[in-house]
Amino acid sequence: MASTRARIAVDAMGGDFAPNQIIAGAIRASAELDVDVLLVGDSQQIESYLQHHHHPSNVEIVHADGVVTMDEEPLTAIRRKPNASINVAMDLVKDKRADAVVSAGHSGAAMASALLRLGRLKGIDRPAIGAVFPTILAGKSVIVLDVGANVDSRPKYLEQFALMGTIYSKYVMAVEDPKVGLLNIGEESSKGNDLALRTYQLLEANEKIPFIGNAEGRDVLSGRFDVIVCDGFVGNVLLKFAEAVGEVMLQIIKEELPQGIRGQLGTALLKPNLKRLKQRIDHAEHGGALLFGVGGVCIISHGSSQAPSIFNAIRQAKDAIDNQVLERIQAYNEEHQQETQTNTETVNQ
Amino acid sequence: MASTRARIAVDAMGGDFAPNQIIAGAIRASAELDVDVLLVGDSQQIESYLQHHHHPSNVEIVHADGVVTMDEEPLTAIRRKPNASINVAMDLVKDKRADAVVSAGHSGAAMASALLRLGRLKGIDRPAIGAVFPTILAGKSVIVLDVGANVDSRPKYLEQFALMGTIYSKYVMAVEDPKVGLLNIGEESSKGNDLALRTYQLLEANEKIPFIGNAEGRDVLSGRFDVIVCDGFVGNVLLKFAEAVGEVMLQIIKEELPQGIRGQLGTALLKPNLKRLKQRIDHAEHGGALLFGVGGVCIISHGSSQAPSIFNAIRQAKDAIDNQVLERIQAYNEEHQQETQTNTETVNQ
Repeated sequence: MASTRARIAVDAMGGDFAPNQIIAGAIRASAELDVDVLLVGDSQQIESYLQHHHHPSNVEIVHADGVVTMDEEPLTAIRRKPNASINVAMDLVKDKRADAVVSAGHSGAAMASALLRLGRLKGIDRPAIGAVFPTILAGKSVIVLDVGANVDSRPKYLEQFALMGTIYSKYVMAVEDPKVGLLNIGEESSKGNDLALRTYQLLEANEKIPFIGNAEGRDVLSGRFDVIVCDGFVGNVLLKFAEAVGEVMLQIIKEELPQGIRGQLGTALLKPNLKRLKQRIDHAEHGGALLFGVGGVCIISHGSSQAPSIFNAIRQAKDAIDNQVLERIQAYNEEHQQETQTNTETVNQ
Repeated sequence: MASTRARIAVDAMGGDFAPNQIIAGAIRASAELDVDVLLVGDSQQIESYLQHHHHPSNVEIVHADGVVTMDEEPLTAIRRKPNASINVAMDLVKDKRADAVVSAGHSGAAMASALLRLGRLKGIDRPAIGAVFPTILAGKSVIVLDVGANVDSRPKYLEQFALMGTIYSKYVMAVEDPKVGLLNIGEESSKGNDLALRTYQLLEANEKIPFIGNAEGRDVLSGRFDVIVCDGFVGNVLLKFAEAVGEVMLQIIKEELPQGIRGQLGTALLKPNLKRLKQRIDHAEHGGALLFGVGGVCIISHGSSQAPSIFNAIRQAKDAIDNQVLERIQAYNEEHQQETQTNTETVNQ
């Protein structure tokens, strides 16, 4: 466990419901979780909200000018607006005033800002966004990465994603013996596209990765795997489909159940059970995605995040900090590089 | 409309519940749809089933020896077992004794058999499997192709898929003005992997394709698109995820709703509404996937198909035949090739 309280920089200006819902989620986290919160954004707007509600002593305001909007090209905007909320939040981590950033703003901008300001971890070629999916087994989740940081990935990127996912699964999700899968179109090792075929061989050969084979689309939810790696193109399509499917299911339930008099009565009786059902299905009830491979803990929340999602994202950030995900990835990479060097030396002798 | 009744060859031996559930679905179709059915498989087993039930006059038995099993390598098996049920069914179409094949067996084997026996349509480089997904708009579906016939597709394959999907949407799904999308990770034309970027340009330039832009994962269910094209790798992952998600949702509903006394009472009252809900969610209630681009109508049903799925697949086959999908794709390709030639001549002058 970390010796000090985790300090989370929250981008108060990013997201469809910024700043109010973001601040509300952050305040709840400051009260219920053992964290300090730095609210980054327009100080006037933030102060005005806090005056009308409550300003906890462990919530600090850090002023920022402007925000990267959804229609901006991320890299250009990040460079042109050095004082935008996402940049100021990343700088807090860079300057060691915060341990993590949570943002529901432009995810491309968050990634670009993290890369420029925090850099990549040693031994990691590309960052990856990891998203936690629920499975059919109650209480069991799976982390899928990459869900959109990269397209046209190379096998060695996916190998690095597998490693980072394994560490996250083991130390943050507390899976004693994580099982890693490669997203593919069949179970056999001979199945797949060129990327999958080549990645399979790397994963199988790497003793540090508990690879158990290919995962098909259905296996994302089956609970057979704790970590599933894929290129960011297919991962992003899958994530956005999964988010939408939850909404569609809830709407179909809302349309069909209350039909007729018996339907209305039955639905009324089921109110608490339907609420629990919604919690299991709705992506808004789950936290954000984690940006792996950069020099800081970054949680990228959904643009439509409201207070509960921001609260969950802050908890995720705290979990990653307390369980030293970054340090463990770095330690592995150093060890791994030494081994590779030793192997090379052996070969050269 | 076709001048004669559609004749459907049904692979009675393929699928987890073959032959009984397959035969049951075929018999129902022979009674309720205006079709002739050819049941292809072990004649003793089929006859024995029909004797215990009922042998309609429009159901013919065609004997076949053996079946391609799920663990066989498709191309090898198709070649080594010329009299397997899927091959005999394809031969019926080749010999013009049937207009379509329906199979719930090994989908790779069905594709290999179709390619070897029926060949590709002129102007089509690769076949594609198209699957119909429900959308959030009641009564509106979208056809997604390719969901697994190819991996590492080229832009021109996806262009051909878009064309075939448009024809299917217009003439079989009766969408007057179909809207075509390219599955991608963002709406902007600058988003995506190399394949998506290059395909976007082709689709935009092709006047015969009513392309309206990129479709994200969430758009598969939104009802904004009638046809969505993608490489078979991402399409297959999406399809298998979507099938599983339906099952997972139904299980979560089954687990959560009846909890407690009020829950049991409410669930009992909702029985008919829950049944309707299941019909909208469950993939087994929908039909099969269509193999586009080969010289015959082929419906590939899910391996777990039971009688209702087979019935739906036969209806799909009949719809494709009655609406002359093959003929229309061929006509387009001939027209398109003439145009290309004319353009080339103009350029050469």
